[in-house]
Amino acid sequence: MSPDEFRRHGHAVVDWIADYWSSLDQRAVLPAGPPGAVAARLPPRPPERGEGFDRILADLDSVIAPGLTHWQHPGYFGYFPANTSGPSVLGDLVSAGLGVQGMLWATGPACTEVETVMLDWLAELLDLPARFRSTGSGGGVIQDSASSATLVAVLVALHRTGGGRWREHGVERRHRIYTSTQGHSSIEKAARIAGLGDDAVRAVEVDPDTLAMEPAALRAAIEADRAAGLVPTAVVATIGTTSTTAVDPLPAIGEICREYGVWLHVDAAYAGSAAICPELRYTHAGLEYADSYCFDPHKWLLTGFDCDAFWVADRAELIEALSILPEYLRNAATESGAVIDYRDWQVPLGRRFRSLKLWFVLRWYGAEGLRAHVRAGVALADRFAGWVRADERFEVVAPHPFSLVCFRLRTRAGAGDSRAPSSTDANANGTDADANGTGAELDRANAELLDRVNGTGRVYLTHTRVGGRHTLRLAVGSPYTREEHVAEAWRLITDAATASQVGRS
Amino acid sequence: MSPDEFRRHGHAVVDWIADYWSSLDQRAVLPAGPPGAVAARLPPRPPERGEGFDRILADLDSVIAPGLTHWQHPGYFGYFPANTSGPSVLGDLVSAGLGVQGMLWATGPACTEVETVMLDWLAELLDLPARFRSTGSGGGVIQDSASSATLVAVLVALHRTGGGRWREHGVERRHRIYTSTQGHSSIEKAARIAGLGDDAVRAVEVDPDTLAMEPAALRAAIEADRAAGLVPTAVVATIGTTSTTAVDPLPAIGEICREYGVWLHVDAAYAGSAAICPELRYTHAGLEYADSYCFDPHKWLLTGFDCDAFWVADRAELIEALSILPEYLRNAATESGAVIDYRDWQVPLGRRFRSLKLWFVLRWYGAEGLRAHVRAGVALADRFAGWVRADERFEVVAPHPFSLVCFRLRTRAGAGDSRAPSSTDANANGTDADANGTGAELDRANAELLDRVNGTGRVYLTHTRVGGRHTLRLAVGSPYTREEHVAEAWRLITDAATASQVGRS
Repeated sequence: MSPDEFRRHGHAVVDWIADYWSSLDQRAVLPAGPPGAVAARLPPRPPERGEGFDRILADLDSVIAPGLTHWQHPGYFGYFPANTSGPSVLGDLVSAGLGVQGMLWATGPACTEVETVMLDWLAELLDLPARFRSTGSGGGVIQDSASSATLVAVLVALHRTGGGRWREHGVERRHRIYTSTQGHSSIEKAARIAGLGDDAVRAVEVDPDTLAMEPAALRAAIEADRAAGLVPTAVVATIGTTSTTAVDPLPAIGEICREYGVWLHVDAAYAGSAAICPELRYTHAGLEYADSYCFDPHKWLLTGFDCDAFWVADRAELIEALSILPEYLRNAATESGAVIDYRDWQVPLGRRFRSLKLWFVLRWYGAEGLRAHVRAGVALADRFAGWVRADERFEVVAPHPFSLVCFRLRTRAGAGDSRAPSSTDANANGTDADANGTGAELDRANAELLDRVNGTGRVYLTHTRVGGRHTLRLAVGSPYTREEHVAEAWRLITDAATASQVGRS
Repeated sequence: MSPDEFRRHGHAVVDWIADYWSSLDQRAVLPAGPPGAVAARLPPRPPERGEGFDRILADLDSVIAPGLTHWQHPGYFGYFPANTSGPSVLGDLVSAGLGVQGMLWATGPACTEVETVMLDWLAELLDLPARFRSTGSGGGVIQDSASSATLVAVLVALHRTGGGRWREHGVERRHRIYTSTQGHSSIEKAARIAGLGDDAVRAVEVDPDTLAMEPAALRAAIEADRAAGLVPTAVVATIGTTSTTAVDPLPAIGEICREYGVWLHVDAAYAGSAAICPELRYTHAGLEYADSYCFDPHKWLLTGFDCDAFWVADRAELIEALSILPEYLRNAATESGAVIDYRDWQVPLGRRFRSLKLWFVLRWYGAEGLRAHVRAGVALADRFAGWVRADERFEVVAPHPFSLVCFRLRTRAGAGDSRAPSSTDANANGTDADANGTGAELDRANAELLDRVNGTGRVYLTHTRVGGRHTLRLAVGSPYTREEHVAEAWRLITDAATASQVGRS
């Protein structure tokens, strides 16, 4: 494809995306087809001769778009958001066009240096401790995801705790990793990949109301493991757990980590973006104890996937853990010690110029524009939680400091026979279910409600379990979501609850 | 940024990229600035208020482009190519615009199904064994890089060999991984990450002429380890090593792996693309023995980084090794067993819609267009090798079945006192260096030659060591590279050699 052909087809693709974004509200959030519907529309083998671009573009409408879960849809409330935005897409476009592979400083000085500066900019925006910045002992790097950041943190912790033997001689299976019962599945996956096995992960109990880690339980687990001859190696604390956005108490956890010499990794994948707002930064209190920290601009900061921002307090230790230097990668800049080679900060060797999209986003929106985006999400979630609380058929089942609300039907039969709300609607144990039917029946009612609501095609919510019970999650986050969309979601939810009650009466 | 603003700025970015590509030949391949030059041009903190897009775009010319190593430049001959092309960039653009996160089938059915079909298309193009296809027992997935593919292969091999205990109880350090002395550094990195330690990797001797793994040495290493109570677990054979594109003998290696029950992973990161040409497919003979295989369309198949294509012969084993299913990821499609959730085929959880760029590339160029691209690279490398062979000051030091040529000055003083070429110019030991000066002096002469040639700004070559001696690598691969560019490279090389001789006389 010549540069001029690219110009012509590129304009058409840009227009297609602009039209796609403009039409999102008219689309069903979820695809209709069964498994295999998309594959069935593709030929079984590649074409022998090239095709015209118009045919390719046409298939975006006929094959691709109907087969998508539309993550940018204003009615998308599933999982956590995976935001993108115009400037992010254009930063990625420039990156793709340049086709730079920045494994070493020498293979893309701008790719490396813009990344260093952007991670410092983010550190400034979130007011991260000075030692995380490249101007201090640490520094930041873009990982593909918080999963990979957790893996890297675990590896460096093993290197530190292994007394210099881990790199050459491998891992001892006595190492233990701690996270709360609400910690992300990627922690178990990291332990498995690192050769520790799932059993090496200790699930520490949480406070039943806040679902935040109990420091006393962490201390007890560490003490018990030490007594058994095991090696407490890393704690993964979470700011904004995946299930309910619980915030682990970093100051108390950090003290324990310091006392026992345990690596503290803080996973703020979703909620880290909130720290750009001073009034939400209290959720990051105690971060000065951390050895590493990450959050995902690709979740809530208008930067497209993949862009996890990961910092360490001691970059020398990270590089020592992961560096391998074969002859064909040697170069004068690396040997000088004056540059960063980000390949040593991650699992893969190669890397894209992902900092361009961050640069575009931070400049286009500015700090105040990004704060407005986060605040809008928090305000909408707060509004939604208020509606839930005001309807006695429902309960909010966990604190909602950010833009996720976890809620559920309180009674199977709905409003007609519901009881008064419990004294705390953050009660995660929900043992009152049995008063109105078995927990299993309530679970079914909530699952049916979710299916019914998602079946409208207007919104998409997902679920979790809180206190052992089926719970609905509404996560605000698409840049196109406005109050009318959250209000529509609530209307669909209450309609479904009412219909469900009528159906049974 | 509204859809209409995106349309306007998007057209400008597309035009900028088209202009960039058109201007590549007028740019220096390498950036001029010292470490820190790019960072020094960026403000120390993010802007409080948003900026206009014109300012951002202008900085691409003033800050970014001057700080790049231009991987798509027609004079770029470094490392291996990291190709991209118009349709690839546009496929990535659509992916970024859709903003779909395809961790599960349910979160992006089209993202999942197009990937499955594209990997089957590639398997068809390369004529991979039937069991690698999704219609057989296996299947393919896009990884970010061959490094990650190797890591995943090692993990599944550990799961298989660990007798079901690896997932829960962790790795035993008795496992051993085998690769040739020419194997990629990512194999050592994978062993380190997986908790085996660098010492677990056995570097198997190679044939001194072909630099391909010696099957007898592999067998001896496996026997010795078994006798010592160790567990031979995986062999990583390479088709097209990074240093010289040596091809390990898969039929003999595969027989040994079968005999001892060892996992065979085949790393064809760079050279796999060659298998789309029937006349080059001989390099893949014996692939039917492999348990897993990967190659990088992002190296030589006009598809932008990142796009490593990774296949396993038994997908059930892979999924079993890596799957963890928390409540918040449960969904009806997953439970049905009728869909693929690619999160279980990789290290991270989240994933981009990377198969779109493959789909665009395969359709735009068609199989014949891609074959023409590979053949052009091989022909240019062959032409270059002929020029090297015809100049008695130089020698080609390894076979060059693909588009990389490894060569070096034979004598320090150049043509004037050179000897006749040795009987085989694939002699990798190069012990004749001492006849014309010490090896160290020749190494310096070759390093100086490389610096001088790269210093012209017209071309970029990198180096390796072959037979212990400094060797230059010329890897053809940019889609803009034509014969005139390879001829210019050769002219600059011979000019530098001549100038160097004059300087010393």
